[in-house]
This record gives sequence, C-alpha cells and structure tokens, in this order.
Amino acid sequence: MAAIRLLLSLLTGLCAYYFYSQETLSAGGLDYLVLNHVGGSGRFGPFQGDMAAVTSSMTVNFLSYVQLTVSAMTMLQESQGSIIVISSLSGRIGAPFTLSYSAAKFALEGFYSSLRRELRLREISLSVTVAVLGYIDTDNALKIIGDKITMQANPKEECAREVVRAGVLRHREVIYPYWSLKPLLLLKEWMPGLMERMLDKFLILENIL
Amino acid sequence: MAAIRLLLSLLTGLCAYYFYSQETLSAGGLDYLVLNHVGGSGRFGPFQGDMAAVTSSMTVNFLSYVQLTVSAMTMLQESQGSIIVISSLSGRIGAPFTLSYSAAKFALEGFYSSLRRELRLREISLSVTVAVLGYIDTDNALKIIGDKITMQANPKEECAREVVRAGVLRHREVIYPYWSLKPLLLLKEWMPGLMERMLDKFLILENIL
Repeated sequence: MAAIRLLLSLLTGLCAYYFYSQETLSAGGLDYLVLNHVGGSGRFGPFQGDMAAVTSSMTVNFLSYVQLTVSAMTMLQESQGSIIVISSLSGRIGAPFTLSYSAAKFALEGFYSSLRRELRLREISLSVTVAVLGYIDTDNALKIIGDKITMQANPKEECAREVVRAGVLRHREVIYPYWSLKPLLLLKEWMPGLMERMLDKFLILENIL
Repeated sequence: MAAIRLLLSLLTGLCAYYFYSQETLSAGGLDYLVLNHVGGSGRFGPFQGDMAAVTSSMTVNFLSYVQLTVSAMTMLQESQGSIIVISSLSGRIGAPFTLSYSAAKFALEGFYSSLRRELRLREISLSVTVAVLGYIDTDNALKIIGDKITMQANPKEECAREVVRAGVLRHREVIYPYWSLKPLLLLKEWMPGLMERMLDKFLILENIL
C-alpha cells in the first residue's frame, strides 16, 4: 500500500502556503489536504468597527484556505483525494462577540459546500469533508474564551479522531460533539430566535462587555 | 412625522462607499441602510481556481457591506434604525458554478446574524433584516443565469415590496419567494444530500460546463 501523502495547514495562512509550495509540490502527489489554521480575527469581544480585523480574518481564515485548495487541486484530482476543512458551530449559527471569525467560517461553509456540489456535477471524484466543531480544549480556545462561556470544553484527541475518520470515509461533514451540536443545527431554521436565546445563556457577559 | 432618511447601496462596493461618505454623512442622520450592491464574482461557470474572482467577490459583496455598516453605525444607533441586507438562497445553501458569490453571501449571513445577536445582548435597539432571495427577474440575473437554469424568475416589484415590509417591521429575515425557499431551508440540515440533488435538477449543465 502506498504511503498516504498528507498536508496539514496548522500555521497561519501565508506561512502554510509557503510551507506547502516549497515542500510538498516537489514531493509529488497529495491524498489529503487538511485545512485547520486560524488567526487574525481579533479578540473575543464587542465589535467596534475594526475593519482590519474583518479583512485579516477573511484573509487568514478563508482566502488562504481557498488558495491552498486551488494550489492542491490538480494533485488531489489525480489521487482522487480528499479535502478536510475545519469549520465551527460559528460557521453555521451566527456568534456574537466574534463576528469576523463567524463571517470567515460561514464563507468557508459556503465555498466548500458549493465546491462539493460542483465536483459531483462535474463527475470529479474528490471528497470534501467539513468539520463542524464545538468548544474544543485546545490551548488557544481555552485561552480566548475559557472565562467567557459556561460550556464544558471537549477533548481534542477525540475530536481529531472523529475528523480523521470522517475524512477517510469521505463523509460530507462531521459534527463534534455530535449530540450537543446536531439538535441546534436541526432546529436552526425552524426556531432561530429560541435557539439563539438558548445559546446566549452560555455567555458570561460581565467578562465580555 | 419626520422624513425617512434612507441609504440604498445600489452601486458597486467602492462607489457605494464614496457616494455614502460624501453625500449622506453631511445630511445628518439615517434610519435605513439597505445593502444591495453586487459585482466581481466572476461568470456563472465551473470554478477554475481564479483567486482574483474570489477576492473581488469578497471585497464587493461582503467587505464593502461591512464597511458601510461600520460607517453608518453611529447614526443608526442614534435613530434606532434598521439595516437591511440582501442575501440569497446561495447564502444558505452552497451553490455550484458560483462559488465566489456563494461564499460572500454566506459571509454576509454569518456577519449580520452574529451582529443581530450581539446588538440584542448589548441592548442596542437596531434591527438587522436579512433578505434571502431566490431567482428574481432583474436584468442582471436574467442575463447571467437565464439560460442556465430551468426555474421561473419571480417579479422584482413584489420582491422589493416584501423586503421593504420586513425591514420596516424589523423582522429578522424575509424569504422570497417564501413557499419555494422555506421548505428547502427547513430540510437543509435534515437531509442535505437529497435536497441538493433536488436543486441540481434545475441546472442546465450543457449550458454551463
């Protein structure tokens, strides 16, 4: 069995691109493109009209994902490979105090769900898996929102296993933790106001405003 | 009753901003900000990795909306005004052959639904109405996709009335045409694959690929 050729984007956007273009293009071939870098979306707090944060979040959390995908597309088509995109509940349901991040994650959902449909219509065998993640206990997440919400963080090791599993099985999406997030997604269009008010109860406003 | 002070963004992003900053700021006050300009998202066809189209669509169809909102925010808070954002079914359900447009519309949905929640939590009385529109018989839409889908276009006059009505009533969203789109939105998270296949049947692939 051939070795699996994998690219993980774990750095900020531009670094990831540099790393990719220098090292991987010359290695020849790619089976999995895992897009997971984050940055530039400003602090978790009220939106103060900071356009630099909006632009930066779009560049790092959306445009660089698309750029990496474009660069890898030929190799992924050759290997009938897979794209795995790390999104968030904030990419499905608007999230207060993190507008730039939410907008970029929504943009990812739009781009990659459109791409998945288009690839199928063009009969190109390349899978696109979107990972809709809740609150995960990475150092970064704990630092940024640990004291600002009352939710329990979920283990990153189990999260990573679920994401890898869904990507390998070429599932259209993976939701983690499933039983916390799926009901919210199912009800989102049915009773948006009620659902947002439920979610608002997890926020510790005195630590945010 | 005071005159209603209204700003419609009907031009491309940068022009809209110029128009706004020169004329309206000096007029003093604003009750309604209607964001409706479009451009730069490339042709309706297979995605060829054109990063310029992605960046341009994000700039015109997303970032300039946010910039206009930021510029108008103080006046809108003073008047307890309303923001009306024109989105699309392509901002809720990924759309093949128009990836850049879909991504920008998704980003709008993310930003403005997050903003609405945040304004409520900050107890700022400013309404945000998102208009989810289907296929409308504007000259632009007919020209771009008229020969590429089998759907019937809906009258722009009725569409405009519905959008204005929802904005004035400070509704969170308006869906037009309601009975065509609402079932798709309700089922989106319940059976995404089936729903996308239903939508795919409206595409005239030989006119696209």
